[in-house]
Parts: sequence; structure tokens; C-alpha cells
Amino acid sequence: MGATLSPENRETLNRLAIEVPSWAYGNSGTRFKVYSTAGTPRDPFEKIADAAEVHRLTGLAPSVALHIPWDKVEDFAELRTHAENLGVRLGTINSNTFQDDDYKFGALTHEDPKIRRKAIDHHLECIDVMDATGSQDLKIWLAEGSNYPGQADMRGRQDRLADSLAEIYARLTGEQRLVLEYKFFEPAFYHTDVPDWGTSYAQVAALGERAMVCLDTGHHAPGTNIEFIVMQLLRLGKLGSFDFNSRFYADDDLIVGSADPYQLFRIMAEVIRGGGLEESSTISFMLDQCHNVENKIQGQIRSVLNVQEMTARALLIDRVALTEAQISGDVLAANEIFMNAFYTDIRSELEAWRAERGLPADPMQAFRASDYQNRIEAERVGGVQAGWGA
Amino acid sequence: MGATLSPENRETLNRLAIEVPSWAYGNSGTRFKVYSTAGTPRDPFEKIADAAEVHRLTGLAPSVALHIPWDKVEDFAELRTHAENLGVRLGTINSNTFQDDDYKFGALTHEDPKIRRKAIDHHLECIDVMDATGSQDLKIWLAEGSNYPGQADMRGRQDRLADSLAEIYARLTGEQRLVLEYKFFEPAFYHTDVPDWGTSYAQVAALGERAMVCLDTGHHAPGTNIEFIVMQLLRLGKLGSFDFNSRFYADDDLIVGSADPYQLFRIMAEVIRGGGLEESSTISFMLDQCHNVENKIQGQIRSVLNVQEMTARALLIDRVALTEAQISGDVLAANEIFMNAFYTDIRSELEAWRAERGLPADPMQAFRASDYQNRIEAERVGGVQAGWGA
Amino acid sequence: MGATLSPENRETLNRLAIEVPSWAYGNSGTRFKVYSTAGTPRDPFEKIADAAEVHRLTGLAPSVALHIPWDKVEDFAELRTHAENLGVRLGTINSNTFQDDDYKFGALTHEDPKIRRKAIDHHLECIDVMDATGSQDLKIWLAEGSNYPGQADMRGRQDRLADSLAEIYARLTGEQRLVLEYKFFEPAFYHTDVPDWGTSYAQVAALGERAMVCLDTGHHAPGTNIEFIVMQLLRLGKLGSFDFNSRFYADDDLIVGSADPYQLFRIMAEVIRGGGLEESSTISFMLDQCHNVENKIQGQIRSVLNVQEMTARALLIDRVALTEAQISGDVLAANEIFMNAFYTDIRSELEAWRAERGLPADPMQAFRASDYQNRIEAERVGGVQAGWGA
Amino acid sequence: MGATLSPENRETLNRLAIEVPSWAYGNSGTRFKVYSTAGTPRDPFEKIADAAEVHRLTGLAPSVALHIPWDKVEDFAELRTHAENLGVRLGTINSNTFQDDDYKFGALTHEDPKIRRKAIDHHLECIDVMDATGSQDLKIWLAEGSNYPGQADMRGRQDRLADSLAEIYARLTGEQRLVLEYKFFEPAFYHTDVPDWGTSYAQVAALGERAMVCLDTGHHAPGTNIEFIVMQLLRLGKLGSFDFNSRFYADDDLIVGSADPYQLFRIMAEVIRGGGLEESSTISFMLDQCHNVENKIQGQIRSVLNVQEMTARALLIDRVALTEAQISGDVLAANEIFMNAFYTDIRSELEAWRAERGLPADPMQAFRASDYQNRIEAERVGGVQAGWGA
Repeated sequence: MGATLSPENRETLNRLAIEVPSWAYGNSGTRFKVYSTAGTPRDPFEKIADAAEVHRLTGLAPSVALHIPWDKVEDFAELRTHAENLGVRLGTINSNTFQDDDYKFGALTHEDPKIRRKAIDHHLECIDVMDATGSQDLKIWLAEGSNYPGQADMRGRQDRLADSLAEIYARLTGEQRLVLEYKFFEPAFYHTDVPDWGTSYAQVAALGERAMVCLDTGHHAPGTNIEFIVMQLLRLGKLGSFDFNSRFYADDDLIVGSADPYQLFRIMAEVIRGGGLEESSTISFMLDQCHNVENKIQGQIRSVLNVQEMTARALLIDRVALTEAQISGDVLAANEIFMNAFYTDIRSELEAWRAERGLPADPMQAFRASDYQNRIEAERVGGVQAGWGA
Repeated sequence: MGATLSPENRETLNRLAIEVPSWAYGNSGTRFKVYSTAGTPRDPFEKIADAAEVHRLTGLAPSVALHIPWDKVEDFAELRTHAENLGVRLGTINSNTFQDDDYKFGALTHEDPKIRRKAIDHHLECIDVMDATGSQDLKIWLAEGSNYPGQADMRGRQDRLADSLAEIYARLTGEQRLVLEYKFFEPAFYHTDVPDWGTSYAQVAALGERAMVCLDTGHHAPGTNIEFIVMQLLRLGKLGSFDFNSRFYADDDLIVGSADPYQLFRIMAEVIRGGGLEESSTISFMLDQCHNVENKIQGQIRSVLNVQEMTARALLIDRVALTEAQISGDVLAANEIFMNAFYTDIRSELEAWRAERGLPADPMQAFRASDYQNRIEAERVGGVQAGWGA
Repeated sequence: MGATLSPENRETLNRLAIEVPSWAYGNSGTRFKVYSTAGTPRDPFEKIADAAEVHRLTGLAPSVALHIPWDKVEDFAELRTHAENLGVRLGTINSNTFQDDDYKFGALTHEDPKIRRKAIDHHLECIDVMDATGSQDLKIWLAEGSNYPGQADMRGRQDRLADSLAEIYARLTGEQRLVLEYKFFEPAFYHTDVPDWGTSYAQVAALGERAMVCLDTGHHAPGTNIEFIVMQLLRLGKLGSFDFNSRFYADDDLIVGSADPYQLFRIMAEVIRGGGLEESSTISFMLDQCHNVENKIQGQIRSVLNVQEMTARALLIDRVALTEAQISGDVLAANEIFMNAFYTDIRSELEAWRAERGLPADPMQAFRASDYQNRIEAERVGGVQAGWGA
Repeated sequence: MGATLSPENRETLNRLAIEVPSWAYGNSGTRFKVYSTAGTPRDPFEKIADAAEVHRLTGLAPSVALHIPWDKVEDFAELRTHAENLGVRLGTINSNTFQDDDYKFGALTHEDPKIRRKAIDHHLECIDVMDATGSQDLKIWLAEGSNYPGQADMRGRQDRLADSLAEIYARLTGEQRLVLEYKFFEPAFYHTDVPDWGTSYAQVAALGERAMVCLDTGHHAPGTNIEFIVMQLLRLGKLGSFDFNSRFYADDDLIVGSADPYQLFRIMAEVIRGGGLEESSTISFMLDQCHNVENKIQGQIRSVLNVQEMTARALLIDRVALTEAQISGDVLAANEIFMNAFYTDIRSELEAWRAERGLPADPMQAFRASDYQNRIEAERVGGVQAGWGA
């Protein structure tokens, strides 16, 4: 018999919901090669079907993020109904200003007002989509920057970014939010226009209350203490959302928890410490991953299970004893309390959690045993498989 | 005949003044060994004498930063007069909360209010010194943090830091400023309480107008685009001061410009772009270095010359042509204009600059040819050489 | 008047020849977007025409590396003649085992002997091409590895790699060589089968005398001292070739010398120190770059000029004085001698070097002033632009 | 009830023995501060007493590494008897060529033959100590290098290193070995003379069979896949020993397993895969750590427990199933088998392991409950506490 959670911690765990990205079900790869796989969705409807399967087996993934224009459809109301029929809802809308030839040297930061206009309009269109889908968040990842020193006027770009964001922010209505993602490097190599949480924070702080920071766990320099940033953004009231994934070196977009599960544990411990799983919290927990060589649906199942497992272990931390050890300066006692939670096997408790909800004890195994993969491989023949281009 | 600067650029260059740190003249080293050297100062008076020699030969280093308690003297007015008699003035006051046994687990962030009180009082005492020395800036480098996950409550520490800083800030008078330095790691290894510019910015923004960020060029993660941060802090009006040095891997504290002179050029280019050398600028340019294996006075001379040289080269950038190339998206033309300035040998112009001021053409050579080193080696016998402990 | 080179150093500089990669003239990009540009070659013949233009204007790029199958043609003798007619020759043959679906989990290291066989055969075919083109080197970049811990048996793969390489090596004839490139990460993220120079060295040392290491300047961990590896491989007699490029963070494949020109200077200084530009040297100097956002032909011109310029500056090092300073332990004198060479403007000397050879004083300007780009944009209409897929 | 080990895996686990370093019981710190603590040993006898306490409570640490001259005593036979009486033996002898003023610019690599002679003689003296203590290994960590480009002739130093090592190696007798440690950086910042495993390997391969590589887990560039190097050195028959510790950024020397326990698990999995825990293995497993802010004896207890725990979890890997998944290219199945072992709580099994041997179930708790710490704090009054200087 393994460890168990207190009733209070169970409630906290029950609040954990992880949004999955539509693009994780399409093909992805590196600049060297994108492998295609049988059964890959050809359109947003099929992506949502796959996402719904993840939720059906895990009970953890009730919503799906969309990427515009990759997931553009004639009728978003129809897509919304499709999702709801499958038991999930449409979530964050992600804009895309990195694939049009016009954006080679920038979009929201471009020197040319016509191109900025186009990029702003794209975001306004995304908000139209949000109105139709009922999405709460417009997520902006700024893929802009430069490759060579001197190529760009970084200062002017920052000012233009502020202007562009202000116009987009002004269009939001009701509960809608703007979340601004930062990224250390790639696809630009010398500078990116929003490289760190400080820049994202300074930009969204200038916009207003409903502008927040998105923290992608793969978008930091080597050695960065990510849970510190989680703590700081929670403290500043500006942590809007997570993009979860793992990395060994760059923005590898691997399965969250696969490279350093202890880091994920520490991140979730800091989320809990900062109230990020309390009822009042508005943080959106999302995956942003690429399954280049592994089965995509299974990859997503594994990912949401990993987040749940590390959250459950983080909930095991004996906070009273930990605080006492911290106050007394007993380094090893504090560290032991912390690691004991991480080392404790909580998997049987999570099986019970699933059993209570009529979910399979082992979702990975259940998927493998099901006919789903065979079925989509047989059905999804012809057409163009979804990838980052479509 | 080498390149020459325009009259306007000469005026800008004339404004460059680099503060030298008193502790650079004392012994320093690694955790493995501190080498002592003949002629090392034994007290603040001798440190200032060495610093004055750097200024006498270069015309670039008119002020000296002090470190309390390392540079504590009975009578700061006397020290001030001593400095002024040697042609320099006393500059930034650096506090020290990392060498008292009480601070093992924190100072301004400590769980124990008595220790926080002690640390705050130390800073108030530093401001008393500023009153006596006429210093503008109180520089706070927070050496606090933790070595093990769980050891510390990062969130609580951040809040306590804010409280402590507020009390210190309230004590400042007139033109006095508080500058808060950030550092990625060391001496704490798991987390530092002010690890990045974002944290420093968030903390000083909460204090008020006369609280600023100090950017130490060696305190970033590998691969960080430092000139971007320079740009951003200038844009936000919060770049208080620089701590210049070089690093290959960690916080090596090597001679500025010795590891990557092109990076120093880019930093100075961004300083100029952002108005950091205009008459209205209040940025303080300082060195913070350790001369572990090289002659210390020569190391300081080389450092201020490197900063001047890279500033002069950065002033050579043809801004009109660069802007045109940037706007037109001509990546290679822009990069070429930028690198041409870096590649241009400006040393004869700087020799002329020195000749005009009655300074030696080659300050390094002039120092070697002088009797200064021999003299201090002969005179400074007995006593305890200054180091980080005294 | 700038600095000049001694007659001996001029001879050394004359020996510098830089091979350009055919693929640099095709389209490239990131996983997010490949921008296409007017005038891009559609086949190996057009790539070679562009490469020849680089050599015509710079006198520095007499050979072109090919990539199989990207540059596969019916008749390599015809391609060879085409090249020779344009004043260049065919150089290194690069194999490709990262774009076939069979190689998803490895090629020379694959668990399945049939796939290993296919990968070995591909290399034997490359040697057939070498026989036809007269190429000296077969360059193997191993894009193999794994994304997740546990995914692969690293030890077994290493053994299979040794077997595969032995079979390929045995097929070489005459002066032909095998050069094995190492790469820290990408496209695999958890482990790559040849991640560091040590692995490449151990593998080629087991093969024999004509197996060497290829050092790509962008394939190292952050903070790596690359010139140390250059020194070590020269000392061990195993430095076969360079792949030059620049990087700020990952394998950015930017223009060599654009990110850290001082590093390029140090690398060339170590090449000279180790005899790498002596007449007996067999080192092959190559570019391996991607011009994602800049003009490709100009990007190549700038690159070979950068290598020549840093080599010329490295030749200015006063070796006698440097050795003396090193022996005497005068750190700052040694560093000053070293940096003086780097800081010295050698560009007028290089203009003279070009004038002597009937080359344009400013090859970048000459290309811009020429009709070449307009002509290829007009002529190369229709067909499929070359990229990494073709 | 937790997981259990098979009888075969228990035998493997039984073979795990971890050597502790004498210097871990002395004071250590950063360049900023060394905190002293009550009860710190004043001489090698007291250090060994503390080490013996670790072994007494854990059954895992039967030997103690010495550092010369820090642990120099008049009579090593007496020290040996002292150790044996306490139930431990003397292990690896570590030389020290980084604290004498003569070694400022090198020791085994120095330009000056007299200083090289002195450094070689120091190592010969260390072998004399080995003769007296019965130690198997002479461990050489080369703290040599340079801080500034140009300061040193890296190539000449490498050759001199080879000569120096050859002379030392020739003095070894019987089963004695030389193990050469590599380190990425520190205390030298620009270059270290043995920065990577490739250099260490090339140097020891030139010496002979009884020269091996020492892998310190904290001595790599960020992002390095350490278990790959473990695999490679085992494959090449040159993995002599481990120096275990943890790091977040630099060579932090934290408790092994505290920063990334999953990495330690992967390292031990590769050790097992490569036969490093088989009866024939000669690998020496050692700690090399600094307990700057935590209790030192408890820090050592925690460390050996961490190594045992991650070894036990690594032994849980279902190798048959894993190999099957690897061969079939089932990425997620392979990863799941691998991570399942890591996620499985083996602590009750290890408690049983201790119970069988009459060891306390919880060694940390047992130490805290014992009088040992109080006793040494009371007894060890006066004298000079051991640190890196003595």
C-alpha cells in the first residue's frame, strides 16, 4: 500500500486540469526531418477527437488549445459543438506570426507599419475566434528577433511591440485575457524580442490587469531556476499560464516530466505554495510539446499523467514540518522532508482516483489495448496530414 | 593613420568615466587559493592611492567605490580628503551581508527578525558613510539564497526582502540612490534571492524613483544577450549602474573586454543608443573585478582602457546608414556597418586623446616604466594585506 | 596605413583555402519556417555556379562540398567538368542518414541489421561518388541518438557504430579519408551517438590513419573552449577538418565570425600554432552554414572574408615576444601581445592581397554592384528550389 | 509494502561501497566565506573518526580518501591502524598542486622545469604514502590552466603534462593505479589543462593499463549527458573512479542526488549496464563534496544513502522488457519501463537491508538521536579546525 492524500489535498488535486494543444496531434519534427505517421489528423476536428481520447482515459485534459491559422475552420461554432459532444471544450487561442513571408523580419515589432497592421489584425481576428469559441485566453508567442548583431534596432522594436500589444489588448472583452509568452532563443538566434520573464512582465504590466505572462518550461537559459520564476510571477499576480514540456538542452518540447521529474515536482510545489491550485486561481495549465518520434496520443496521455503524479507528490510535502525546519535553519531536515515527498510512490492512490471516476487504472495500457489507434490509421487515409504548416 | 571620431562623438567619449573598486587592489582568489602579492595595500588609504594611480595614467577613473566593512575607517572625512588630494573622489558604497556568521541563511531575507534588523542597520550605517563621503549610490548585492531545494521558503524571503529594502530606501536623502544588483548564482547554488534583472526590476520599481538596477556583466546564465537587458533597463528608466568584468563560464570577474571584446562593444553600442552617455544620464559605470593572477594596478589600467576603446569603436557606428539598412531589411549591410566599426582600429585616436590631456600615450607601458610598483613593494611591508576579509 | 604581414606570414595566408558547402546556396530555415528566395538554385549545377561566384570574387573558396543525395546527379563527371570550367573543384562528400523514414531510430547504429546495411551501403555509394569526383574526404555527421532516457541502448549503439564505420573505412582507397563529425545535440535531444570530440576520436583512432575528426564550431556545449580542442586534435594528429559557423546558443549555423570574432581569431591562432597552415597540413577548412534570412551568396562571401581576416590577424601575433611573456609569467604582457594582434586593422593589407590577384578590393560591394543576383533571379524561374529535402 | 530486489540484484547492491573524502568533514565554503562549525575535526584522526561514524550507521562507506598535504601525518601506519580500529580503511590518495605559491602558473605543466620537478616529486611522495597506507589509487586533479587568452601555451603544457605523468606512472608498483580527473573550469577560467574526458582519456591511454579516468559528476558543461560518458569510458575500459556530487550550475559540490536524482539513477543504470558493479569491476565510487551550510556528517550519511537508493532503483529496471522495447522502437514503452523503476519506492527494502546487518533503519535519524555530534562539539575545543588549507 502506497501513500495517500489527505481529503484537502485530494480536493486540490481535483482542481488540476491540463489543456492539451491541438498541434501535438499533428506531425512535428526538427529542421532536419519531420516524420509522418499513420493516423495523423488531417483537420481540427480529428485533432480534437484525439484530444478527447486523452481526456476520456485520464480525466485530466478537459480542454484543447487551438492555433490560428492551423486550426482555422469555416464555422467555429460547429467545432465547439464537436468538441463538447466529445466531452471537451475549446481553450486558449494561439496566434501565429512566424510563417508568413511578410514576417521574415518581425510582425508586431516590424519597422513597416503595414506589416504591423497585418499582424495586429491577425490578433484581432483571433479574438473574433475567441468570441466564437468562448475561449478565455489569447496567447501570443513572439517568434520575432534577429540573427545578427546590428541587424535590428532592439529598442525601437520593443517600443513598437508595446504599441501593438496595447491595440490588441484594447479589443479584449469581458473575461478575456492576453498572455504573453517569452522565449530565450529560436527561431531567432541573436536576439528575441521577448526573451525572458522580465520583458514579458514589463510589457504586460504596462497593459493592464487582464494581461499576464505565459511561462513555457522549455524557454530558459541553461541552469535557470524555473520554480523561482513561478514563485515570483505568482507573487506579482502575473502568472497567466504554463506551457509544459521537457528539455535537455534547447526548446526540445519533449514530454513534460521526462527529462527532470524532480524539477516538475519543484515547480508544482511552488504553484501550490503560491495558491496556484486554489479555487480562486486563474492559472491555465497547458502542454506545448512535440512528439517527433513517439506515438502522439500516448505521448499526451503520458504527459498529463506525469503532471498529475508530480502534483500529487508535491501535495505530500509536510508543510508544517517543512516550515519548522526552514525557520530553524536545519538544511538537511528541510531537504529530507522535501525529497521524501518526491520519493514517495503515489501511483496506487492515483489508480484509486481513476477508479472512483470510472477511468482505467492504467490509461497508457488502456489506450494500447483499445482499438483507437488502429481505427484512425484505417480511417484517416488520403488528405494532408496536419503539421505546423497546416 | 587610423580612424577618427567626430567632434560630437568626442564629447560623448569625454563623458565616459569609470569607477574603480577599492577591493580590486587587494588580494582575491578562488575557494582553492588566494595568492598574495608584494605591494598589496593594507588599508583603504593605500587602496585609494593605487586607484589614483590608475586615474593619473588614464584620465578615465575619477572615483573609487568602497566596500563596508572592508573599507571602514575611523574618519571618512579624512579618507575623502586623502582621495581628493590624489585627484579622485569616493564613489559608490557597497554593503556586505555575506561574511558575518549570522548571515549564513540570509540577511535582508532572513526568517529571524533580529538578523534582518542587523542587516538593515548595516545598510543604514552605510548611508551614514555616504553622507560623510558624499557618495551618490548605495549598492546592494544580495549574496543570499539556498543550496538545496526545500531549504528555504523562496516566496517568504522575497516578501521580507521587499520590506527590508523599503526601510533602507526610506533613509536615503537628497540625490542618494539605492541600486540593487542581481546575480544568477554563487555563493548560493540552488536559488539566489535576486537572480535576474526581472526580480531586481520588480523590487526597485516597488521602492520608487531613486531605486535602480545594477547590471554586473558576469551575472547571467550562459548565452544571455546582455545588451538586450541594457536596452530594456534603459527603456524602463531603471539602469542605475554597471559592474563591468568578463567571464568565460561563471562569475569569473576577469578584466572587462578580455573574454569577448565584441560583446563589450555591443553593450556600449546599446548604452549609446539608449542615451546612457548623454549629459543627462545618471548611469554609473564601474568595474567589479578580481586580479587573481595578474598585477592588480595594471589589470585596472587595462580594464578602463578596454572600456574606453570599445566605447570609441561603438561611437564609430554609422547610425544613419545602419538605420537605413535596418529599415530596408538588408541584414548583411546592417551587420557590415556594425562590424566595420568594431573592426576599425581607433587606438591612434585614443593616443591623441591622451596626448591632449598630458597623459602617457601608453598607460600600461608608462606604469611599467614608472617606479610605482617598486615603491609600494618596498614601502608596504608588514601589516595585513587587504583581501575580502579585511 | 594599416598593419602588414611578413613575407613568411603572407605565404602562410596564401595557403588558406575554404571549402564552401553546396547546401548553403539552397533554402534553409528553422523547424518553424523556411523562407524561399528568388534566384535560389534548383540543382547542383546552379549551386556550383553560385559557389564559383564566391571564389571568383574572393580567391578564397576553390572547392565545393557536396551532400548526397541532395546533390546526386546522373553523371558526376559532368558535374566535375562544370565545376572546373567555372574555376572550382568538387570537394568533400557528405553522407546523409537522417532523412529517410528507415532512419528514425538510427542508421549506422540501428538495432536492425537490415537498416544498418542500408546505411553502410549509402556510404559505400558515397565513396563511389568520391571516386568519380576526385574528392578526398567522406564526411560523416551522425544525426543519430534518442530523445528519451531508456529509449536506446547507448552502449550497444556505440559498438554497432564501430562495426559500421570499420566496413566503410575498409572501402576507402588511395588518399581518401573518413572524417567523423561530432555534435552535442540536435536532431536528437537526450543523447547523440557522437556527442563530443572524445567519442569521435576514440572511434576514428580504432579505424586507422586515414580516419580523422571533423570539428564543427557550432557543435559544443555552452562555455566550451574550442581552441583547446583544436590544439588537442592537432597534437594527436587527428584534426581532419573544420566546419566553420557561428552560434549564440545552439547550432545556429550563422556566418562564421559574426557572433564572436575573437573566438575565431583564437581558433586560427591555435591552428597556426599547431602547424595547421603549414605546407604539410592536410586539414580541410570548410563552412557549414545556413543563410536563413540573409542573401546566401553574400553570406558566403562575408564568411570566407571573415576567416581570412581573423587568420591574418592571428598571423600578426608576435610569437617570440608572446613566448617570452608566457615563460616569464607576465600575464598582462602576454594577453596584450595576443589582443594587440586581434585589435590591429589588417583590412588594407587584405585589399592589397586581392589587388595583386586581380580581385575586387571589396568583394561584398563588387557582388552587389554586379548583375549576378538579378540574372539568377530572372533565369531561375520554375522548377523546385533546392533545400534540405532536395 | 514496497518493491523488492531479486537475489541477484541484492548481491549486486551488496557490492556497492562508497569511499568518503576526509576533507568533507572539514570546513569548506566559497570564495566569499567559509563558515566554521562546532565539532569540526582538527586533524586526520578526527576526520577518520567522523567517516567511521558514517560507515557505522550506513554500512556503505568502508574507506576514506586522503588529501596530501591536508592529511599528512608523521606516521601513516598509525593512521591506518586508527582507521582499521574504527572499522574503515584508508583509500585513494589525492595529490594537491594548487595551494603552493610556486604553482600559480602550473605544476605538472609549468614552463619552469624546477617547478615541474617539485610537482612530480610531490606525487612520488604521495605514492610513498600509498605504500604505507595500502591505497590502490593515486588521484590527480589538475587545477592548472590560465585565465586569459594568450597567457599560456596550451599545446606546450599538454606535452609537458604527458612527460610529468609518465614519470609519476613509472613509479607505481603492483596493483597501484593513477586516475586522472578532468574538470571543465575552475580555478582557472579561460582554459584548464584537462578540461574534458577526451583529454583525460588521451593522456591516460598514452600511459598504460593502470592509468584510468576519474569522472567527477560536477565537472561538465551545462547540458552534458554524463551517463553517456560513463558508458563510453566503461566501453573503453578506462573508467577508474567516480567523484560523486551534485550541481545546479558550476562545480557546486552539493550532496549527490540532491539536485537531479533522476540523473544519478541514469548514471547508476549505465554503470550496471556496463558491468561496473560486477565482481570483476575495479571502479572506485567516491564522494567529493562540500558541506558549506549543512551538518557535515549528516551530509555524508545522506549522500551515501542517496547513491544506494538510486542504485537500488536502477536495479529494478526490467532489462528484458526494456531491451525488447528498444529493439522494437517503442519509445514510450521503453521510457515507461525505465521511469517505472525510478518512480518505485524501494526504501522499505533498503530498511530491511539495513536491519539484516544490524544497522539502524533510518541512519539520519539514528545520528540525530545519538550523542555523537554533542560529544565532538564538547571534545573538539581549541586547535585549528581542518579546512582546505590544513
